[in-house]
Amino acid sequence: MNYNITKNTTNYANRGMNLENDINISNDFYQVNNIALINKKPTPIRVSRVDYKHSKITEAFFEKPSTLDYNGIYRGKYIEFDAKETQSKTSFALMNIHKHQLDHLTKVIEHKGIAFLIIRFTKLNKTYLLLGKDLLNFLKTSNRKSIPLEYFNEKAYIINLTYLPRLDYIKVLDKII
Amino acid sequence: MNYNITKNTTNYANRGMNLENDINISNDFYQVNNIALINKKPTPIRVSRVDYKHSKITEAFFEKPSTLDYNGIYRGKYIEFDAKETQSKTSFALMNIHKHQLDHLTKVIEHKGIAFLIIRFTKLNKTYLLLGKDLLNFLKTSNRKSIPLEYFNEKAYIINLTYLPRLDYIKVLDKII
Repeated sequence: MNYNITKNTTNYANRGMNLENDINISNDFYQVNNIALINKKPTPIRVSRVDYKHSKITEAFFEKPSTLDYNGIYRGKYIEFDAKETQSKTSFALMNIHKHQLDHLTKVIEHKGIAFLIIRFTKLNKTYLLLGKDLLNFLKTSNRKSIPLEYFNEKAYIINLTYLPRLDYIKVLDKII
Repeated sequence: MNYNITKNTTNYANRGMNLENDINISNDFYQVNNIALINKKPTPIRVSRVDYKHSKITEAFFEKPSTLDYNGIYRGKYIEFDAKETQSKTSFALMNIHKHQLDHLTKVIEHKGIAFLIIRFTKLNKTYLLLGKDLLNFLKTSNRKSIPLEYFNEKAYIINLTYLPRLDYIKVLDKII
C-alpha cells in the first residue's frame, strides 16, 4: 500500500512538538490514506464586536468547550475524543476535564459512539488511550481528584509513537473495539 | 413518552425565526430526549491578536469552513450536514457550497457516514433534505450552477415543520436510510 505523506494545508515545521500536533498530523495521514476522517473542532469563540467594513472581528472571547476537541468517523462509526498532556509523573488531574465535557462524553457512549481520552505523561514519554467507559468507571468508584498512573497501566492502552502515522491511535482502537 | 422541551443553555426568544434556529432547537430536543446527539460546530475563526491581560481577543477573522456545519451521532452512526436558505423560488445556487465542503462531503460518504443538506426555499415555505449522494449525482450529470427545484421535488425529501421537534429531519432519515 502506498501512503501519501503530506497534505497541502498542514504545516510540518512543528512536527512532533506536542501532543496536539502529533494528533493533527496523524489525522492528516488517516485522511489522505482514506483510513479515517477525524478533525479538530474549531475553538469556540464568542464574537462581541465586528468591524464589518474591514471584515474584521475587533472583540471576542474564548469560551470553554462543552464537547471534546476531536470528532469524526471511522468505518461508519462516530468517534470523539480529547487530548491532554500532563507534566505529572504519577497522575492525571481531573480538573483538566470540565463537567460539560463529561456529560457530553457520557452521551456519546449512550448513543453508541466511541469516546476516549488520549493522555500523554510528557515526562514519562508515555501516551495512553483511555476509553470513556473506563474514565466513567473511575469517577463512579473513586473520590480522587486525579487518576493515578497505575489506573492507566491497568485499564488504558499505550499508543506507540511511530513514523507514519505519528500516533497510531486507530490501530489501538482496532484491537479494543 | 414524556418529552423535555427546554435546555438551559438555549435562548428561545428567536424561536422559528430562521432555518439555523429551527435546527438548533430541534437538536436540543433530540439531545434532551436522547434521540440523537448533534451539534453545530463553532465557526472557524483565525485569531491574530490577543490581549492576554484581559483574556480578550482584539483582532480575528472569520474563515471559510472546510467541513459542513453540523455533525454528530444517531444510533452509533456518524451524521454530518449543512443547512442553507435560499430566497429563490426556482433553484438553489451551488456557489453556496464551497469546493472544500464538497470534498469533505464526498469523504464522509466514503467512510460510510450519513451526509446531507437541509435546504429551505424560504419564499415557498418548503424545507428539503437532499442526501449527499444525490447532490454528488447532480454535480456529475449536470453543468448547471444551480440545482432546480424540480430536482428537489424528484430526489429530495420534504421536512415538515412541527411543534416538537420544530424540524424533524431525523424522522426523514429514519425513512430513507
